[in-house]
Amino acid sequence: MSALRAILFDIDDTLFSTTEFARHARRNAVEAMIERGLKLDADTVLRELDEVISEFGSNYAHHYEKLLQRLPPEALAGLNPSLVISAGIVSYHDTKFQELKPFADVAPLLADLRAAGMHLGVVTHGWTVKQAEKLVRLRLLRFFDPLAVIISEQVGISKPNPKLYAKALRELDLPASEVLYVGDNPTHDIAPPQSLGMRAAWIKRAAKHDLAGTGIQPDHVVEDFEGLRTVLREVYGIAV
Amino acid sequence: MSALRAILFDIDDTLFSTTEFARHARRNAVEAMIERGLKLDADTVLRELDEVISEFGSNYAHHYEKLLQRLPPEALAGLNPSLVISAGIVSYHDTKFQELKPFADVAPLLADLRAAGMHLGVVTHGWTVKQAEKLVRLRLLRFFDPLAVIISEQVGISKPNPKLYAKALRELDLPASEVLYVGDNPTHDIAPPQSLGMRAAWIKRAAKHDLAGTGIQPDHVVEDFEGLRTVLREVYGIAV
Repeated sequence: MSALRAILFDIDDTLFSTTEFARHARRNAVEAMIERGLKLDADTVLRELDEVISEFGSNYAHHYEKLLQRLPPEALAGLNPSLVISAGIVSYHDTKFQELKPFADVAPLLADLRAAGMHLGVVTHGWTVKQAEKLVRLRLLRFFDPLAVIISEQVGISKPNPKLYAKALRELDLPASEVLYVGDNPTHDIAPPQSLGMRAAWIKRAAKHDLAGTGIQPDHVVEDFEGLRTVLREVYGIAV
Repeated sequence: MSALRAILFDIDDTLFSTTEFARHARRNAVEAMIERGLKLDADTVLRELDEVISEFGSNYAHHYEKLLQRLPPEALAGLNPSLVISAGIVSYHDTKFQELKPFADVAPLLADLRAAGMHLGVVTHGWTVKQAEKLVRLRLLRFFDPLAVIISEQVGISKPNPKLYAKALRELDLPASEVLYVGDNPTHDIAPPQSLGMRAAWIKRAAKHDLAGTGIQPDHVVEDFEGLRTVLREVYGIAV
């Protein structure tokens, strides 16, 4: 087995709990709208908001306008819709800026990997500025080689196309066999890097999809970054 | 003279210093980009950013992408543009959320006016969510009648069209003669409400345009909200 020289990470539900964070931010937004006068209970509004996001996509710019269009008119009687929407947006953003944090075991392992001489990067699916902003707000950017931060929109290639992962290998100037990919989504994060000859670790902690029935076999299955640390030390002999 | 029953306010450069705030937020953004590796001095980058904003308009969504396209390629050598852009955007937003504050004399006067039984509202030019978000972040929303917050995009009428101000009169259900408008821009904030029979006060503190040569005659010229307080008390007999 050739030595490991670099590790590439997925962002969402790998470096932080995207799912849990989004749920919390949406609830805060809905509560701010109710505080601004919206006459409905939070659970009802939250269910409708989840529907809007699933129908229009998470990157759509007007979720809250659509939400208000769908609510019964009497819920908005006497209110100015733009003030209700803004209350929700402000609360959502405030949550994002105050509460966006990596899993507690992420920064310590990344720091130790850098100290051990590993190259670190990111290969992520999503909108350029949104994904880059997450790395800034998570305060993880300092651990990564800037040119090995590959965002699908920025390079015009989408997960699970293996070309996206190949682009990171070119930036790192390393053969696939010396690079490990770490992510939560079997079809996006395990199969494509393996098809290039990279190794792939499946991190289960926040994973929404199971391996069962997929025929996908990760090189490593770990619960969290402490489990990953053990694999890196024991299997690859990295001093972390 | 009929009694004054309501006062309507402009937002930008009337309730807070839009101009000064924007200058400060842009400088913070540029400094964050330089900290992220951009190889140019802050004044040069700031001049280019000001040009981008003046050419593409202040509501354009991609100022920082355009800025980077215009800088010499060597300023970005070895950098990932998306990370530089995100550093700027994050810093701009953090400034907005932490430093957006009304002029110090605004909230006290609005509170006293409410206590004196006045109806208060806003008539503002701009994008619905952006303007409403300013009122939320400035923490001034509690002083205004929600339905008397009139935003040009939301109602499809732009300053200086008098119909925008007439819409506020309809929401308040008051004759023009009982309503005062307060703003910094002579052509937007003085002439149109006067054309409907409203009174209009010009607040000079942050005003970018002078009256000279415009032929516009405000009913009142005040330096700040303390000056406005004096006018309201002495001319209109309001107990503030």
